[in-house]
Amino acid sequence: MRDQWFIRGRVPMTKSEVRAVSISKLELTADGVLYDVGAGTGSVSIEAALTVPGLQVFALEKKAEAAELIRKNKEKFRAETVTVIEGTAPEAFEGLPAPTHAFIGGSGGNMTSVLDTLLKINPSLRVVVNVIALESLAEITGWMKDRSVDGEITAVQTARSRRAGAYHLMEGQNPVYVIAFGGEESPWAEES
Amino acid sequence: MRDQWFIRGRVPMTKSEVRAVSISKLELTADGVLYDVGAGTGSVSIEAALTVPGLQVFALEKKAEAAELIRKNKEKFRAETVTVIEGTAPEAFEGLPAPTHAFIGGSGGNMTSVLDTLLKINPSLRVVVNVIALESLAEITGWMKDRSVDGEITAVQTARSRRAGAYHLMEGQNPVYVIAFGGEESPWAEES
Amino acid sequence: MRDQWFIRGRVPMTKSEVRAVSISKLELTADGVLYDVGAGTGSVSIEAALTVPGLQVFALEKKAEAAELIRKNKEKFRAETVTVIEGTAPEAFEGLPAPTHAFIGGSGGNMTSVLDTLLKINPSLRVVVNVIALESLAEITGWMKDRSVDGEITAVQTARSRRAGAYHLMEGQNPVYVIAFGGEESPWAEES
Amino acid sequence: MRDQWFIRGRVPMTKSEVRAVSISKLELTADGVLYDVGAGTGSVSIEAALTVPGLQVFALEKKAEAAELIRKNKEKFRAETVTVIEGTAPEAFEGLPAPTHAFIGGSGGNMTSVLDTLLKINPSLRVVVNVIALESLAEITGWMKDRSVDGEITAVQTARSRRAGAYHLMEGQNPVYVIAFGGEESPWAEES
Repeated sequence: MRDQWFIRGRVPMTKSEVRAVSISKLELTADGVLYDVGAGTGSVSIEAALTVPGLQVFALEKKAEAAELIRKNKEKFRAETVTVIEGTAPEAFEGLPAPTHAFIGGSGGNMTSVLDTLLKINPSLRVVVNVIALESLAEITGWMKDRSVDGEITAVQTARSRRAGAYHLMEGQNPVYVIAFGGEESPWAEES
Repeated sequence: MRDQWFIRGRVPMTKSEVRAVSISKLELTADGVLYDVGAGTGSVSIEAALTVPGLQVFALEKKAEAAELIRKNKEKFRAETVTVIEGTAPEAFEGLPAPTHAFIGGSGGNMTSVLDTLLKINPSLRVVVNVIALESLAEITGWMKDRSVDGEITAVQTARSRRAGAYHLMEGQNPVYVIAFGGEESPWAEES
Repeated sequence: MRDQWFIRGRVPMTKSEVRAVSISKLELTADGVLYDVGAGTGSVSIEAALTVPGLQVFALEKKAEAAELIRKNKEKFRAETVTVIEGTAPEAFEGLPAPTHAFIGGSGGNMTSVLDTLLKINPSLRVVVNVIALESLAEITGWMKDRSVDGEITAVQTARSRRAGAYHLMEGQNPVYVIAFGGEESPWAEES
Repeated sequence: MRDQWFIRGRVPMTKSEVRAVSISKLELTADGVLYDVGAGTGSVSIEAALTVPGLQVFALEKKAEAAELIRKNKEKFRAETVTVIEGTAPEAFEGLPAPTHAFIGGSGGNMTSVLDTLLKINPSLRVVVNVIALESLAEITGWMKDRSVDGEITAVQTARSRRAGAYHLMEGQNPVYVIAFGGEESPWAEES
């Protein structure tokens, strides 16, 4: 889904290519429950919900302004399976159905506590994290080492064309680290 | 979907991140018809079919070895909506339902003739092309200029972690150019 | 040399990393003559001159505003071996000593005619070209094919850290294509 | 300088583009003293020595096989100002002239102790570090935070063309993080 389709305000948003890669790595299932932690504009929640009908999505966001945006986007895209939760993770998880999948696009500085809580609720949770700061990358690789979590880290850097007369100039986008780990064994997992 | 889930043989394959970005940019619809031209292992066809139930997918491939791989992958993933067409584009399009979407991952050197034929069949076709050679990139940007096609070009370069003892080394992947254009106006297109 | 050391005005400038890679690929020699075609702020001319004492550098620039900037930078860095030539390539080459090395950072749309003229003057010229537009890349790869020039093409994409509180965010820079070819056989060329 | 000019054996080597960027960021001076810590094949030492005549270069390397390679490269390139020191940093620094510049391309796992020792010897040392593992990147950003060192971090990712018939395919190289900090105030530092 194109970035400009979403109602955005001034809230930072996962770019379409990184969103596509992240949702792909989530390996969502129709009977699953996705937590989108630090949901921002809700673009990941909404694209996940529209892509996988049946999936229950909880978009958690502590900032009122962003939560309001998610509600607007939910309405625009008629994403009925998205529930907006205004609150701080991990406290805001209480009372929700246990997740099968989690996307963490922003953690407000307590990423490791969020991850520990999520994995306590469901040890075979499938997790995808996006980080852009090197210190956050260090935090998550440190946490993976401490918990003996074996994950895949992918740096995604794109450049997008911009028209200038008859020319296409390529504009570099900010690199994003996409960390993925965990999850149930896939039915397709046997090496081919 | 992970690359290693697919049966691959020695046929080159679109990598998972680029496949996710390409399928996202195809903006597939449940009532659509996708041509996957130069389908290779069929990974794009199969991931598209599994992601969008209802979509009809035609995987066109001229090499017998590759076509056989696609059939095996179709069976493995029970991708009933994928039809394998062994033949050369654009001739092999004859007799097929008109496409609404086309992915071109390999064109055997006649990309522009394939594109011209596809757009004659359906002028509002949504097209996504993957190229890795600079000369193919020049061919498609030249074609876009000649036909006054206004498209979006995205260079996607990823690096994937490889474990070496306690370390994650990042290994650079080959950059892929993802060109996208055309398509019906999206119901969500009004700028937000 | 850091970008902010140069007097810049509003003239676009090769970024420090790409400048370093380009000057390295020029393989300059102390008894050489470098043409910097479309010299912009003169940053390549000046860094080349300061790095290789003895090298004669001709900074060619057709825009008066940019030529004035180069003169200011020449003065700031006391780059005595840089001569500023205000004029249009290839006409402005007339009367200058034959080049041994050429850097083309901007060609005002007549890159192939500039290259043909340069190689007529010195067939064993060492050339490095920077392009950012895909159409310019197509022009140069097309020219290389027509002239049977075997060159090396390197895409350089960097991301630079920006401090945000205790965090380093990585900001993507625009990718630049650095094309290098020609030159005398290096005394070090025997494969090791 | 081209990678293939160096005698290499099986020792890993900084690639030419990253070497050029790193040497540029070292901001070497003719009256300077460079330590190349974990010198590998010695390519950085030798290119630095040839680029800046007058510079004293100490190539420190703990592995006998690599030290032997550096000696061979020193001889091939007649790099008289390079002194090979076989030993482990930081102990091997003893007895050497104090450095004005240091390049760290490999630290054998004690990077922070090497950095602390170097900055004790010369607090206004100019330092450039190359890391490829995320854990090493975390170590150095953590060290910078602890010591309140304000540095610049640049991720460099290149793709190099490979000929395949009439086509140039771009092959992704591994991303390298180039960290630079410290040094005397440059005479050119006043913002332009």
